[in-house]
Amino acid sequence: MSQGEFDLIARIRQRAAARGDVALGIGDDCALLAPPPGMQLAVTMDALNVGVHFPPDTAPADLGWKALAVNLSDLAAMGAQPAWGTLSLSLPQGDVAFVDGFFDGFFALAAQHGFALVGGDTTRGPLSIAITAHGLVEPGQALRRDGARVGDDIWVSGTLGDAAGALRQWQAGVPMSPALQARLDRPTPRVALGRALRGIASSCIDVSDGLLADLAHICRASGVGAEVDVDALPASDALRAAFDPDTRRVLQAAGGDDYELCFTVPASAAEALGNALVDAGTGATRIGTITAATGVRPVLAGAAWSAPATGWQHFA
Amino acid sequence: MSQGEFDLIARIRQRAAARGDVALGIGDDCALLAPPPGMQLAVTMDALNVGVHFPPDTAPADLGWKALAVNLSDLAAMGAQPAWGTLSLSLPQGDVAFVDGFFDGFFALAAQHGFALVGGDTTRGPLSIAITAHGLVEPGQALRRDGARVGDDIWVSGTLGDAAGALRQWQAGVPMSPALQARLDRPTPRVALGRALRGIASSCIDVSDGLLADLAHICRASGVGAEVDVDALPASDALRAAFDPDTRRVLQAAGGDDYELCFTVPASAAEALGNALVDAGTGATRIGTITAATGVRPVLAGAAWSAPATGWQHFA
Repeated sequence: MSQGEFDLIARIRQRAAARGDVALGIGDDCALLAPPPGMQLAVTMDALNVGVHFPPDTAPADLGWKALAVNLSDLAAMGAQPAWGTLSLSLPQGDVAFVDGFFDGFFALAAQHGFALVGGDTTRGPLSIAITAHGLVEPGQALRRDGARVGDDIWVSGTLGDAAGALRQWQAGVPMSPALQARLDRPTPRVALGRALRGIASSCIDVSDGLLADLAHICRASGVGAEVDVDALPASDALRAAFDPDTRRVLQAAGGDDYELCFTVPASAAEALGNALVDAGTGATRIGTITAATGVRPVLAGAAWSAPATGWQHFA
Repeated sequence: MSQGEFDLIARIRQRAAARGDVALGIGDDCALLAPPPGMQLAVTMDALNVGVHFPPDTAPADLGWKALAVNLSDLAAMGAQPAWGTLSLSLPQGDVAFVDGFFDGFFALAAQHGFALVGGDTTRGPLSIAITAHGLVEPGQALRRDGARVGDDIWVSGTLGDAAGALRQWQAGVPMSPALQARLDRPTPRVALGRALRGIASSCIDVSDGLLADLAHICRASGVGAEVDVDALPASDALRAAFDPDTRRVLQAAGGDDYELCFTVPASAAEALGNALVDAGTGATRIGTITAATGVRPVLAGAAWSAPATGWQHFA
């Protein structure tokens, strides 16, 4: 490490939040954490690369927010409470303005969830961000992908397609609708909802690759299928205003990066779900049913519907 | 994720080791882990980028080994027992031969330490590897950087300068000595030694940036200084055979990437240290003394000695 890297670490260290269960934070070979007795640890790691996961001109603060948000969203999808994280930041050069902006966004979201940055690494290289996020969840209470059962209702939180709509506008060279761009740049991890769904949802996943693609993960893991009413997929007013219905449906069904939760609930838990949604302060919409026939079948006006795209392709 | 990424994840999943404390491994939004009661969690995250941390022609298996080794070395430096990890692998394209080779090296080292890969991420982008490693350590027993006291002896394990010697040969375009190249490509994390030093060493760090630079981290964190006998720094026969004494001393004092442990021990614990070294099966050499005057002072034949380089510069 050069002096530049030490200065950078000192700047980050000053801004990292304290938690009582962090015995030793940034600055040694490892962080030392004291997990609360009897809790399981949920661990996820997601990376973002320039030009692949975000446009090169993304604002540093949005990047800091989003890099953390996609990881907190994985914790939310398991019903875990965010706790601690580590960050690996690869930068072409030591750019103080970029770093300060990045951490403005990162720590703004971290503070909302009492999430402590406890360590990591800064290296020279193409702009790339990897984060490992740790959350806490009661044993047996985690929301997994493999618990969906035939007859369960399928639900999704919030609205779908906004982030993909913004990306579509950006790719087409037209100005992004501000409401859509906000969803793309500053997604909201549904942490409170994930917590509220413990003991209610039979399975859960966050929508990062696209609703149909992510629901297919649940179906594969659970050994079931799904029928989805495309017309029931929730849309924001901004999305409805920006796209014709055919394009909008594709964005909702197959667009990624919304970070809503898609989850299944047995009919017997419908009332508990209603209460959980109120507790979490998050809306959700019933969009279909788990079936015995495998595969995901989107239906529109009673007929099979197919989208031309099937989600984000990392290795396209 | 595309089918290519799913195939890749399936290949990795088949090879990941099982552990009783892994409630849910690769394949969901998060891994679920059950930390043993009463233990602290040591967490570290280190990334390697092509062209910065390794030459582009490094063998994939060596890369897999080394990427894990540098992280296990951080656990060793804290006295922690390796447990679980996550991996973010960024690849220019889905290259099955590269991936299989990479995991040959990764899992060869992981198996030596009962280390389970529980999750991660594969993305498209320039070749880059980030690993988060988790270890377990008894509360209050971790080896930290801030415990060195005036009068403590300074020790280093194994030999120094081999990895930097290999790199020097590679940079000069001469064939690397096989023994030196092995140290560069397949470093040995000193896990057993780190465990054995609990309750004996007053401070510890792994030598990744160079002995003098890393010892300076201990001195800064502990508010002390150090006098180091350059002639006492341990050298391998291969290093002695490959370089003149002046160059060799620079490689030993300032070359990085050896991943030996540098640690301090009070004189009162000298006998316990002897037993610990036998238990760990690792040799170590006394190289100096902790002083009240701050800063690290290398001495050769009674006079101040200075090296032209001060370790690996990430942001050079």
